[in-house]
Amino acid sequence: MRIAIDAMGGDLAPDAVISGSLLALESLEKGDEVILVGPKEVLEPKVQGRGGYSATLSIEHAPDVIGMDEPPVESLRKMPRSSISILAKLGKLGKADAVISAGNTGACVAAFQMRMRNLEGVNRPGIAVVFPTFTGPVTICDVGANIACKPINLYQYAVMSMIYARRLFGIQSPRIGLMSIGEEDAKGNENVKKAREFLKKDPKINFIGNIEGRDIFKGVCDVAVCDGFVGNVILKLTEGLVDGLFKAIKQEVMSQKMNFLLAPIFKSIMTNIYKKHDYNEYGGALLLGVNGTALICHGASEARTIKNAILISKKYYGERINEKIAAYLAASAIVEDTPAGEPQDVALRVTDGQVD
Amino acid sequence: MRIAIDAMGGDLAPDAVISGSLLALESLEKGDEVILVGPKEVLEPKVQGRGGYSATLSIEHAPDVIGMDEPPVESLRKMPRSSISILAKLGKLGKADAVISAGNTGACVAAFQMRMRNLEGVNRPGIAVVFPTFTGPVTICDVGANIACKPINLYQYAVMSMIYARRLFGIQSPRIGLMSIGEEDAKGNENVKKAREFLKKDPKINFIGNIEGRDIFKGVCDVAVCDGFVGNVILKLTEGLVDGLFKAIKQEVMSQKMNFLLAPIFKSIMTNIYKKHDYNEYGGALLLGVNGTALICHGASEARTIKNAILISKKYYGERINEKIAAYLAASAIVEDTPAGEPQDVALRVTDGQVD
Repeated sequence: MRIAIDAMGGDLAPDAVISGSLLALESLEKGDEVILVGPKEVLEPKVQGRGGYSATLSIEHAPDVIGMDEPPVESLRKMPRSSISILAKLGKLGKADAVISAGNTGACVAAFQMRMRNLEGVNRPGIAVVFPTFTGPVTICDVGANIACKPINLYQYAVMSMIYARRLFGIQSPRIGLMSIGEEDAKGNENVKKAREFLKKDPKINFIGNIEGRDIFKGVCDVAVCDGFVGNVILKLTEGLVDGLFKAIKQEVMSQKMNFLLAPIFKSIMTNIYKKHDYNEYGGALLLGVNGTALICHGASEARTIKNAILISKKYYGERINEKIAAYLAASAIVEDTPAGEPQDVALRVTDGQVD
Repeated sequence: MRIAIDAMGGDLAPDAVISGSLLALESLEKGDEVILVGPKEVLEPKVQGRGGYSATLSIEHAPDVIGMDEPPVESLRKMPRSSISILAKLGKLGKADAVISAGNTGACVAAFQMRMRNLEGVNRPGIAVVFPTFTGPVTICDVGANIACKPINLYQYAVMSMIYARRLFGIQSPRIGLMSIGEEDAKGNENVKKAREFLKKDPKINFIGNIEGRDIFKGVCDVAVCDGFVGNVILKLTEGLVDGLFKAIKQEVMSQKMNFLLAPIFKSIMTNIYKKHDYNEYGGALLLGVNGTALICHGASEARTIKNAILISKKYYGERINEKIAAYLAASAIVEDTPAGEPQDVALRVTDGQVD
């Protein structure tokens, strides 16, 4: 398997990306290849003499870099030879079986979608992030690829995340929740209400109904489906809140009389919690629904995050999750939106041959 | 001032509501009145003999109670003599200057809106919740009254929350953030983009631009504006995450060797943090934009939450915030939505006479 990675993506690039790639090489096999995408004059001196792995490391030259905060689409247009553009091109041409970047998320989403196109049957791709909650991993989709979400998109996010959670976490029948503002049928906006009908009509989905924000951390679902706007707010709010709370606790500990004794204990407690709920373990977020294996990592990704992203991309690819998604959607009767206002009548086609 | 309160609203009603009302009476003045709304046969025995305050306590009979999870509008229709219905009626008829409930939120929003109507110039009311963050109070509006939000609504939430934060927290020029998924102008859905233009065009608003989920806890803004769907997810996610994190910390502490020594110390640390960031201090959430003073409290409200809600309603009313909002909006040039797709050209009218 050939895994291409944006060597210039992320706050700690290129060093963390290179280190992470080398770490991953230790676990990869003969025939596997990690392709570092970036300016060769930067990368070559850093990898020179690093060998001795079964798998191969190579460099694909890309002279330009899109900054973390640059406008995505405009940057892609201006810099066709940026690492993200070249990365997406490798994915498109089949020269890489997986593409990974911790760079500008917007640019990644745009480039991967434009170049690699959608998986057959998928209307819009969605980013699936794994939340390492106190009660186990919860996959949330979408967290920002699609902010003009239609009911069919929400349905497909459920399908894709279901197959993803089953194959990656071994959850046979993932409990799917639909993010809303109350549990009752009548609660939620029009999109949510229609998506709810779609989800109810598919007997192969273990749909638990609407969930609320607090349910993410209650262990009631394995997958939470929402539009990209809401998902992005959830993702960033969680990050900010955990960060703020840890700081508040630290401050409080340091204001105690015995702080010199408490500080190390507190630090170890926090480290334990952090380890148990560490998103770095999950490497990155899959862009589900593109015709390929595409991972987007956190901008703060460390070497081990990159390593994990590479290994997860291999697992995703190896499990043939995309094939399973395409087959599932081809057999699904939920195919398009009923125009708003019209009565819903999506009869379920009899599907011969269970897919996943 | 006459403050009517739903004696049957909330998980701890009627006892917590009655206790909270009695606590509030200690701080209220002669001429003030707290009206408990609920079944008199339940309430009378509980308040008998409780006197000696300058302010008055009275009971308004309402035989029925809408349960916390009952469908709001249907329940209101079925139970015109429920405590929430009677409460809203008191507000409508001017028999109460403020109405408060910790009951079924949906029913409260519906009843208050239907009965009391909108404040002049307000298109849709919004619920403003105060987040006691690590860096000070942040007012978030809307958290669930309006999930089919238009740009004009978002603009008005900014205006109302601004005046609210100024008057209640003494923040002279509250920094207003617009919840989105990135800081750039181009980020966000159509509603957000249009609201952003409205906010930029009003020079009296200290608009800091788009904010992301994490910014709520970073001290960058005093007010965060969003649609009711997103706001509700934020509210409940925060609740669930804090709860989950505290439990995880507790578990970790208890798994330490010296847990018998550590447990009380950590308990006190957690209690300190909790106290500093205790939503009960803020009593409840204002339903901004109705023609009256209406507060909706958390279902888990304790006596002191109710007490604080009563005192905040008095402050809100006393500061004549509604008058200020109406005057501000009457003088504002931002009055309606430009139809989608048409170019925005909302010229700013010269306003004579600064309002607030």
